[in-house]
Amino acid sequence: MTDFSALPTLEAGHALTTLALTEQVLSILQEQHGYDASQIKTDTVSLEHWGKDWTKHFAPAPSAIVFPKSTKQVQALVKLANEYNIVITPSGGRTGLSAGAVASNGEIVVSLDKMNKIVQFYPADRLVEVEAGVITAQLQQFAEAQDLYYPVDFASAGSSQIGGNIGTNAGGIKVIRYGMTRQWVMGLTVVTGKGDILKLNRGMIKNATGYDLRQLFIGAEGTLGIVTEAQMKLNRPPQDLTVMVLGMDEFDHVMQVLAAFQAQIDLTAFEFFDEVAVDKLMATGHVQEPFEARTKYYVLLEFEAPYEPIMDKAMAIFEDCMDNGWIVDGVMSQSMAQAMDLWKLREYISETISVFTPYKNDISVLISHVPNFIHDIETIVNAKYPDFEICWFGHIGDGNLHLNILKPENLSKDEFFGQCQTVNNSIFEVVQKYGGSISAEHGVGMTKKPYLHYSRSETEIDYLREIKKVLDPNGIMNRGKIFDL
Amino acid sequence: MTDFSALPTLEAGHALTTLALTEQVLSILQEQHGYDASQIKTDTVSLEHWGKDWTKHFAPAPSAIVFPKSTKQVQALVKLANEYNIVITPSGGRTGLSAGAVASNGEIVVSLDKMNKIVQFYPADRLVEVEAGVITAQLQQFAEAQDLYYPVDFASAGSSQIGGNIGTNAGGIKVIRYGMTRQWVMGLTVVTGKGDILKLNRGMIKNATGYDLRQLFIGAEGTLGIVTEAQMKLNRPPQDLTVMVLGMDEFDHVMQVLAAFQAQIDLTAFEFFDEVAVDKLMATGHVQEPFEARTKYYVLLEFEAPYEPIMDKAMAIFEDCMDNGWIVDGVMSQSMAQAMDLWKLREYISETISVFTPYKNDISVLISHVPNFIHDIETIVNAKYPDFEICWFGHIGDGNLHLNILKPENLSKDEFFGQCQTVNNSIFEVVQKYGGSISAEHGVGMTKKPYLHYSRSETEIDYLREIKKVLDPNGIMNRGKIFDL
Repeated sequence: MTDFSALPTLEAGHALTTLALTEQVLSILQEQHGYDASQIKTDTVSLEHWGKDWTKHFAPAPSAIVFPKSTKQVQALVKLANEYNIVITPSGGRTGLSAGAVASNGEIVVSLDKMNKIVQFYPADRLVEVEAGVITAQLQQFAEAQDLYYPVDFASAGSSQIGGNIGTNAGGIKVIRYGMTRQWVMGLTVVTGKGDILKLNRGMIKNATGYDLRQLFIGAEGTLGIVTEAQMKLNRPPQDLTVMVLGMDEFDHVMQVLAAFQAQIDLTAFEFFDEVAVDKLMATGHVQEPFEARTKYYVLLEFEAPYEPIMDKAMAIFEDCMDNGWIVDGVMSQSMAQAMDLWKLREYISETISVFTPYKNDISVLISHVPNFIHDIETIVNAKYPDFEICWFGHIGDGNLHLNILKPENLSKDEFFGQCQTVNNSIFEVVQKYGGSISAEHGVGMTKKPYLHYSRSETEIDYLREIKKVLDPNGIMNRGKIFDL
Repeated sequence: MTDFSALPTLEAGHALTTLALTEQVLSILQEQHGYDASQIKTDTVSLEHWGKDWTKHFAPAPSAIVFPKSTKQVQALVKLANEYNIVITPSGGRTGLSAGAVASNGEIVVSLDKMNKIVQFYPADRLVEVEAGVITAQLQQFAEAQDLYYPVDFASAGSSQIGGNIGTNAGGIKVIRYGMTRQWVMGLTVVTGKGDILKLNRGMIKNATGYDLRQLFIGAEGTLGIVTEAQMKLNRPPQDLTVMVLGMDEFDHVMQVLAAFQAQIDLTAFEFFDEVAVDKLMATGHVQEPFEARTKYYVLLEFEAPYEPIMDKAMAIFEDCMDNGWIVDGVMSQSMAQAMDLWKLREYISETISVFTPYKNDISVLISHVPNFIHDIETIVNAKYPDFEICWFGHIGDGNLHLNILKPENLSKDEFFGQCQTVNNSIFEVVQKYGGSISAEHGVGMTKKPYLHYSRSETEIDYLREIKKVLDPNGIMNRGKIFDL
């Protein structure tokens, strides 16, 4: 979202070489490694389609799209890429928001689309082995069919692939209870950038046999190798989910309400959004106003209530918070349908504000720092850009905030984004001041690369580079993402 | 426990050099880095005391023990160790069982004993920043004082230190519900083998900014650097823990009972032990027989039951399992005191069998493989060593089994261990056949090093070596542990 510096383009000479080399690689794949015609695409439409993700700022320009059907076929490609010095961009559901899956410089895109099988299920372990191209929703549905639950969930679950989720360590709306994707990955099959096949951790809960390489590949955005299979843990399904939407007029009260509920109830969500978000939502007419009067801040919280006493407890906490003057108004779902209706208040925000061409940042700090952090950011933006409207929402129970600056009508998109980029450094300075993260769950890819130093020291980044060299000595894996070599 | 090959000893010449260099390092630490006399020990008793862990097979022979009081002082030592080519062995509570903290070759031991402060608590984040020398029980008590809970618990919690727990990714008795130490480490301050101070992840739940180096240090047994501080997540305390002890006569029934309970109840423990264990326990007279008649297998399960309906559900599952003929007999705690009494059945096993000089192995496989795995191991041991008695216990809900071969009275300790070592390769071949781990939670250290290849491929081990080179290019960190350089 943030880097509009000169887009990398193919130089004419380089392009020719890359294309010629790519053609040789494609021939060898077909002749020696069992790739058939359906597994290779070089037409313009395909290059455009598979060459980009949900980020819009980079022009896709891959040299070919390849669809392996097995780990062995992935390995064959990686070995050839090393030999011919061609960069590979792994590609899942391409729902990323940091251009981690954009191929803009003659890369061969490796799509996992044809590796989309559920391989094996181990009921006693609640463990399922899947190919990396399995779609998140497909895994969720498989789990449901076994009376189990895959708890990592987010807006793009219908398109995102497990391999991609692993590459960015996807989070989402249930992290407060279930953690990130990392927590559910019990084993990985990977092809390293060097072309070795590793089977990492093999599904075990306990395995104290040296460095856990599996963890390195989680969140590596395909820069160390390609995840081809994963063993994912499943959980028991949540029971009788109940939703409350609460209104507050001071941000400190949001924090007090979080503390009050969390002390006694296992929350499955604690989501936050502000008046601006509700304002825009109501204007669409698609969502119902939660209370009679508007409040400055809103919280949606969710918990399991299979037993009456839990509901009583929740009501008691609610009343306590009202008595303390923290909560101005609130509603609670009485049925699953009502719960889903209340969730719309949170879930429809992204789409609703998209018409305002928002400049988005996905940042995180310790929960303890959130109030001061929000205050500092608002001060900066209001001082420098008094006519910019800010819309906040996010997973406040995890310290993860989505900051959205809305485009004023009188500004062109380019002017607006240009100004936002200037704001960026100020925002990230505040992130740095609070020891936070410039990318909570969207990854670094290309868009956050120029700002990585706000969250990782130069010394740390040097270690990242050295570790990449171990697994990908020739730098063929998703070169240009996260950091420059 | 397993490797009795020639113990490494100091060659005379080498020893002199090491000692001379150590003396220089110690002088510089005092002159330039604020170490006082109380922070350096070189007397024989101290060398013996801090030079070993709970493993008994290696003779301690460090050249000095150093007690830094700050990360900066650790860094000063690491830099000097690089300069003078002296190996450093990080030392926590030294309760390890794989000789990971044994210094047997002129190393400088870095004890974290003087870095034992709780630094800061973030209530809204349920996060506590501690120095690495904080003892596990100290953290547990601190959590309790805040009405919170640190859930990683095991027999040595009264002596083990957080830094050591991180070094081995300690597990224990509550893993089925709360996971390993890894899950609770939200941030680390480390001094790398190169001497850089890194502050990794800084406590955040969500932080998608490149490779998560924190994960590499967890379970690295001090071979990449020294953890000096950690940010640990706390949880709400468990409520109304209830314990059941159940008896079964077939191993398959143990698995069916696990499945039946886990489908409906969030277990906080599912521990297993066999008739041999109960036999030895009863002989001590310290523990009460759980049922009238002995059964072949026993399970201790635990769950939170703050609400009556949960108890009803547990009873219904229990009766169902009885009706199916899976459970032969069972008892349930009616009070906290009874729950603690029942736990003795599981907790006293280790101490009880210690008089039989057990040959221990700490192994893990997928839960689905446990029945066949146990069968294969018993077949091998019974065939080759018909007079060896086997005692099984473990955390079966995690696939983690402690295999104990008891020494027959007529065999000397040396003869017995010699024979067990021969059995070892057969046992680990079975572990390998099922894709399991030769060390579930005790780490590799020196004792499991010769067997690492049964759980990690040679290619993987080569990657481990290369990664070590990135963080510890001169190989000064705990050299000789996990793998040879």
